Amino acid sequence: MAKAVGGLPGFRDFYPDEFAARAFIQQAWRDVARRFGFVEYDGPPLEPLELYTKKSGDEIVGQLYNFTDKGEREVALRPEMTPTFARMVGARANAMRKPIRWFSIPQLFRYERQQKGRLREHFQLNVDIVGEPDATADAELLAVAIECMRAFGLTSEDVVARVSDKRLLAALLTVLGFEADTHVEVMQVIDKLDRQPKDVSREKLQRIGAGGTAVDTVMSLPESGIDLFEKFLRGKGRYEATLEDFKNYLALFEPLGVREFVRFDPSIVRGLAYYTGIVFELFDAKGEFRAICGGGRYDNLLGALSGTDLPALGFGMGDVVLGELLKARGKLPANAITLDYWVAYEDSAHMAEAMRVATQLRRAGHSVEYGFKPVQLGKQLDTARKAGARAVVIVKADRTLRIKDFGSGTEGPFTLPNG
Amino acid sequence: MAKAVGGLPGFRDFYPDEFAARAFIQQAWRDVARRFGFVEYDGPPLEPLELYTKKSGDEIVGQLYNFTDKGEREVALRPEMTPTFARMVGARANAMRKPIRWFSIPQLFRYERQQKGRLREHFQLNVDIVGEPDATADAELLAVAIECMRAFGLTSEDVVARVSDKRLLAALLTVLGFEADTHVEVMQVIDKLDRQPKDVSREKLQRIGAGGTAVDTVMSLPESGIDLFEKFLRGKGRYEATLEDFKNYLALFEPLGVREFVRFDPSIVRGLAYYTGIVFELFDAKGEFRAICGGGRYDNLLGALSGTDLPALGFGMGDVVLGELLKARGKLPANAITLDYWVAYEDSAHMAEAMRVATQLRRAGHSVEYGFKPVQLGKQLDTARKAGARAVVIVKADRTLRIKDFGSGTEGPFTLPNG
Repeated sequence: MAKAVGGLPGFRDFYPDEFAARAFIQQAWRDVARRFGFVEYDGPPLEPLELYTKKSGDEIVGQLYNFTDKGEREVALRPEMTPTFARMVGARANAMRKPIRWFSIPQLFRYERQQKGRLREHFQLNVDIVGEPDATADAELLAVAIECMRAFGLTSEDVVARVSDKRLLAALLTVLGFEADTHVEVMQVIDKLDRQPKDVSREKLQRIGAGGTAVDTVMSLPESGIDLFEKFLRGKGRYEATLEDFKNYLALFEPLGVREFVRFDPSIVRGLAYYTGIVFELFDAKGEFRAICGGGRYDNLLGALSGTDLPALGFGMGDVVLGELLKARGKLPANAITLDYWVAYEDSAHMAEAMRVATQLRRAGHSVEYGFKPVQLGKQLDTARKAGARAVVIVKADRTLRIKDFGSGTEGPFTLPNG
Repeated sequence: MAKAVGGLPGFRDFYPDEFAARAFIQQAWRDVARRFGFVEYDGPPLEPLELYTKKSGDEIVGQLYNFTDKGEREVALRPEMTPTFARMVGARANAMRKPIRWFSIPQLFRYERQQKGRLREHFQLNVDIVGEPDATADAELLAVAIECMRAFGLTSEDVVARVSDKRLLAALLTVLGFEADTHVEVMQVIDKLDRQPKDVSREKLQRIGAGGTAVDTVMSLPESGIDLFEKFLRGKGRYEATLEDFKNYLALFEPLGVREFVRFDPSIVRGLAYYTGIVFELFDAKGEFRAICGGGRYDNLLGALSGTDLPALGFGMGDVVLGELLKARGKLPANAITLDYWVAYEDSAHMAEAMRVATQLRRAGHSVEYGFKPVQLGKQLDTARKAGARAVVIVKADRTLRIKDFGSGTEGPFTLPNG
């Protein structure tokens, strides 16, 4: 006997119970995406390293599982799906009907050196729309994410969708007197408003060089509503148009049936630089977990990555935070692994007959087991019960069939499907 | 616009059409495994390199995607599932009901330097039974593989299962006078009988040092049946028992309903050294493709890999050869991506109403799209048709609903579900 080799830290083993939970989540994702007319795709889990450095710069390499393959290619396990998506869409965009509605459920990998105990892989639902600049598509996209929550039995008491628009925020900052080249820096401060001491944020904003009203206004963003934007942008030409667009967008969640989930939060900017318009995040309403999902519009990214310049928007929803939330809210199903039938036999000479019965039941779509070795009937019934069988079909000594239903406790004659 | 980065050679992009074919195959695998009472598991695609060298020796490294991770661990993308399976089962075997019936559909990776144009990844159905020494389990296992073929609509005219037993072959070789320490070498010759010139095989056997009858008998194996073994093993004590076991095994395919697929072929030894008993391979009956599936009993491997000494058996069935065969036999479904409904609107002011209709249909389980921008009704119908919609629901100017079925060409009033 040898010493066993263990698995790698940060990687999950999916034993049947854990696999069932994973399959439950992925099945719900698939079903919602399908109902919204999205079609599934997948790419390779291993890609050229350049695909990621091109989008995120060389800094990304420190967080990747990257290596040189035996053909001297620089490669990496995919840390996100968007570059693969951009590559695939870019290669065939001209031939495809627009808007393109695609989704995928890739396993993604990140080597995070500092965070011991954290997972280094997860599965992520990626939903993207390509070729539609109108905000109707933005509303549809968020509706997909929220409908996933509803599919898991979560309500607006469990989950909040916070939405914002980077164009709207940029308009406000301009009106407040922030120079265009300081917007990224200001947005970084806004992104951290909820987790950084107020005086630190305030000091940073002052250093960027804005007046007192501007700083106060930015500091008030997390508590502000659309009124603030009405006040500063109304009557300001193209800014007013952006405001109207965004208000029209918000109104779409009523016909989409998810209005109660959606809240305007102008402090949501999403860390990712490539978002160009409406952005959103899903959080648990109690604020116990990290974000469940994040996404938005990235109209310039496809052009930069694939050379195919099309407006696009999408979101990613991982299985780890979501799984924790579902567990905490009691929304993961109890172990669903069950067996429809166990086939037993009274006379040990009738095992072949039991196999015939099992074969017929299996071909009718049922899950069926039987004992591989002849043992006494009582022991077979014990095994069947332990295996989680709903019922046992017994081949009697006279070769007639009887069924014993463990659920109802009833027993009676049994007729095989299809004869 | 930037130059696009392409994908790696040997890795597949699954565009929606290809993904649908992949999902079709995997769904059939899942359904058959479930009907036989198997439960799904998965492990990490990245494992410690040692997990593979321990089973296959250091030579395996040349065929792996292996590297040193940022924590100085020697790791590899999984080239096969059995070591992960052994690790997972080994860690919890004591607590689990036997026999253990598990299956998995991992993506596997091999770096094959020489074979340009060949794939470096594939998906493989792995089905294993642990804890049952009886040949009834061997028959059940092969029945799972064959039932997969039936699920794809393939018959015994398309696919042949060749079975053998390494113990039986070893018994024959002993009776023929081959010393025990030459058996591996003789089996290597037998393994190549169908693709090596006869005089080369004959010469190799003579060099191993067997008499003329022995050489002739081995050379005749591919054309031999059970009679040959009857002749040499009948009346030879424990060898006769092995022969009886194997004949009982063959008889089980009748009650399992797959007898017509199974053929005894004593020249099947499977290249893999760890098989200890019954082995099998599935081939297309016309002999156009490589093996579809291979498996057998490996009673010593779990002990060697995990320290948990339990009898075990299993098979692997890849998606590449199988996919080629299904395509060649016309068994892959035509593109199955369809949309249940498109929702259109006569009056462009009624888009919100169309979204309400779409939401209600989606919540009733249907796949539904609508146009993101108001355009003329005729254009909406065109788009719906191109999107592959089965029917269009039209919000009329007076807000009543009508349905236009593209399949039947009929039109009439429409009532929403739960409406």
